[in-house]
Amino acid sequence: MTIGGIAKGVAMLEPHLATMFCFLATDAVIAADALQVSLRRAMDRSFNRVTVDGDESTSDTVAVLANGLAENAPLERSGRGLRQFRQALEAVAEKLAKMLVQDGEGATKLVQVRVSGARTRREALIAARSVANSPLVKTAICGADPNWGRIMMALGKGAAKVAADRVAIQIGEERIVERGMLRPDARMDRVEATMRGGEYTIGIELGLGRGADSVWTSDLTEEYVRLNSKYTT
Amino acid sequence: MTIGGIAKGVAMLEPHLATMFCFLATDAVIAADALQVSLRRAMDRSFNRVTVDGDESTSDTVAVLANGLAENAPLERSGRGLRQFRQALEAVAEKLAKMLVQDGEGATKLVQVRVSGARTRREALIAARSVANSPLVKTAICGADPNWGRIMMALGKGAAKVAADRVAIQIGEERIVERGMLRPDARMDRVEATMRGGEYTIGIELGLGRGADSVWTSDLTEEYVRLNSKYTT
Repeated sequence: MTIGGIAKGVAMLEPHLATMFCFLATDAVIAADALQVSLRRAMDRSFNRVTVDGDESTSDTVAVLANGLAENAPLERSGRGLRQFRQALEAVAEKLAKMLVQDGEGATKLVQVRVSGARTRREALIAARSVANSPLVKTAICGADPNWGRIMMALGKGAAKVAADRVAIQIGEERIVERGMLRPDARMDRVEATMRGGEYTIGIELGLGRGADSVWTSDLTEEYVRLNSKYTT
Repeated sequence: MTIGGIAKGVAMLEPHLATMFCFLATDAVIAADALQVSLRRAMDRSFNRVTVDGDESTSDTVAVLANGLAENAPLERSGRGLRQFRQALEAVAEKLAKMLVQDGEGATKLVQVRVSGARTRREALIAARSVANSPLVKTAICGADPNWGRIMMALGKGAAKVAADRVAIQIGEERIVERGMLRPDARMDRVEATMRGGEYTIGIELGLGRGADSVWTSDLTEEYVRLNSKYTT
């Protein structure tokens, strides 16, 4: 059984998709409703968790086609076979979603903003999006500047509950903030080396609960501005 | 009677103020509570209606000092004298707030986004901020591109109720969108001339109610990205 996918982006991209097309195809034998549910779930964890500039569009399309040539035992609404299919579909969707962000206008970085310890999963997502869409965070990512104050700011301005003195921040493997303050022995040279790379994670622990979620974002670059200001539509 | 003011910005600036100081001074004889209420009101209509990048800071200060040397009849909680004082204070605050935006990092334009016809004043403000903070709108402002589709997008992605087929958009003196569509006879050359200037208004009529509000914003430029990515803090 095989799943293939192709997608076209990008910019005007946040949750709920944007000027984007994604076509997935599989030879699995699968009931239409099981396929629909699988697709919705895969999107929620991939395309609906990326942002380039927080802007959106109305012309997004995601479609999955199944022609049944794999001649497997039909996949119904539950069961191990469907679970495996879902995992595979989610893996393909995540890969394509990350490629869309990497291919974002002017983007040079792919950064996962991962929030844990929020009061709820929804608040974790709100906090992650506030960080991932902050122009000051995104320009700091562009400049490989471990500017933890901007991350704290973006958390604070968002709608999710945050207690500054409980926040911990990790960039790559290095924890730089604990209890809302810079760790005196944080190895900032290691952090900067991570940030000069093309792909890494900013981990944020809020210390308030068990809600966790994450989004993928890109940096805000001069090239983004150039591409979006220097033509007339 | 005199009111003077001085302010320092800027960037990390949206509602609720940012890395910003503003000191106002007057020789008026005025009761402390009347002065406080006047200040709060003046801020609400000026500094809390500007945005450079939607980001915020915690180190904002606005203070007003009155030394009473004008020897006027004391201004109390109501009355014509206080109304005049308030108007003057609001005028000074608005002027300073606009100067902050003009002085924003990399900013080359000062644009008022004025929304009317929203269901409520609060929704008008939400809609105005969604437009004023959209990276795609702000880059279009930078490039003097009358990209009404991006304005529609920013309205649509916001939390305020919008009916696309009721939206009208005016840039400067020229109405370019009616019922959600480009007016065939809109004089786009006039619009572009307006947008090449340093200061203008984008007027948006939602056609849903009587709520109205506005914000001042700047453009998103390559210089903004350069200033915010090319240094380490």
